[in-house]
Amino acid sequence: MATIDLTRAESLIRTIPDYPEPGVLFRDITPLLADAAALRSCIDAIIEPFAGEFDVVAGIEARGFLLAGAVAIAAEVGLVPIRKAGKLPRPAASVSYALEYGEATIEAHDDIAEGTRVLLVDDVLATGGTLQAAHDLMATLGGVVVGTSVLMELDALGGREVVGDVHTLFHA
Amino acid sequence: MATIDLTRAESLIRTIPDYPEPGVLFRDITPLLADAAALRSCIDAIIEPFAGEFDVVAGIEARGFLLAGAVAIAAEVGLVPIRKAGKLPRPAASVSYALEYGEATIEAHDDIAEGTRVLLVDDVLATGGTLQAAHDLMATLGGVVVGTSVLMELDALGGREVVGDVHTLFHA
Repeated sequence: MATIDLTRAESLIRTIPDYPEPGVLFRDITPLLADAAALRSCIDAIIEPFAGEFDVVAGIEARGFLLAGAVAIAAEVGLVPIRKAGKLPRPAASVSYALEYGEATIEAHDDIAEGTRVLLVDDVLATGGTLQAAHDLMATLGGVVVGTSVLMELDALGGREVVGDVHTLFHA
Repeated sequence: MATIDLTRAESLIRTIPDYPEPGVLFRDITPLLADAAALRSCIDAIIEPFAGEFDVVAGIEARGFLLAGAVAIAAEVGLVPIRKAGKLPRPAASVSYALEYGEATIEAHDDIAEGTRVLLVDDVLATGGTLQAAHDLMATLGGVVVGTSVLMELDALGGREVVGDVHTLFHA
């Protein structure tokens, strides 16, 4: 695998202490996104292990949409939005999953055919609940998830044990 | 200006009657997004009148993120998310605007420098309130909005009179 230099991109991730609550370090990727070269290097790195192996990229609302749109153009594939419940006029599939308190639901339209190869992307892997649900959602629609790529993994939250194999650019 | 053929892309926009309420025709762009060639043609057309004239693309949460991510890679520029209130850890600017009932607020971080040339993109121009607020938000941060591009304009809602000059791919 060729090496993509992500040094500059990583240096642009801003750490904001005590957000959203005391004791939590929030990783803010907006300075990275705003830098054209850093953004491109991350998108190339997200794609690299799966290049040529997927027909569409699916991104999870909302920050996953930023990355998925970029991956779609860079990899020349279609783009599938995975939305929070209640945003799509006729969802073809829904998957609910547990949160720390309560549950959440994600939905998608029927825009993929049986056997469509899907790359899942999101900004952060935390507990893994959303990404696992996204995987199930794509499978329900007949898609074959060939990989999952995230910009950042919060190692202490154990999401990798939930989601299984994930390609991660940065660890925190 | 070169001509980009959007015939196929337009044919993929799905009209869903009586959503979100009776009598309304909802324009669903997800089949267009899922088609790699149709998506690329639209992204090229969104960029075309402003090619080389902007340093970053700003997209409005949430569907605008899909298009903005794509534009960022196609135009080789940075990407600025304009978010709904309460999503950013340290917003540098906020703009509130009137909705039919109540009001909404959008926010952005300080990731653009004074004089940064901004292309604003969103999926739909309806009443124009959000796009006008986005324009004001970028200006507050020191950005210079060089253009606004939308996939679709709902002509009957008069958004063009609010926002001024807008580049529109499809009318409905």
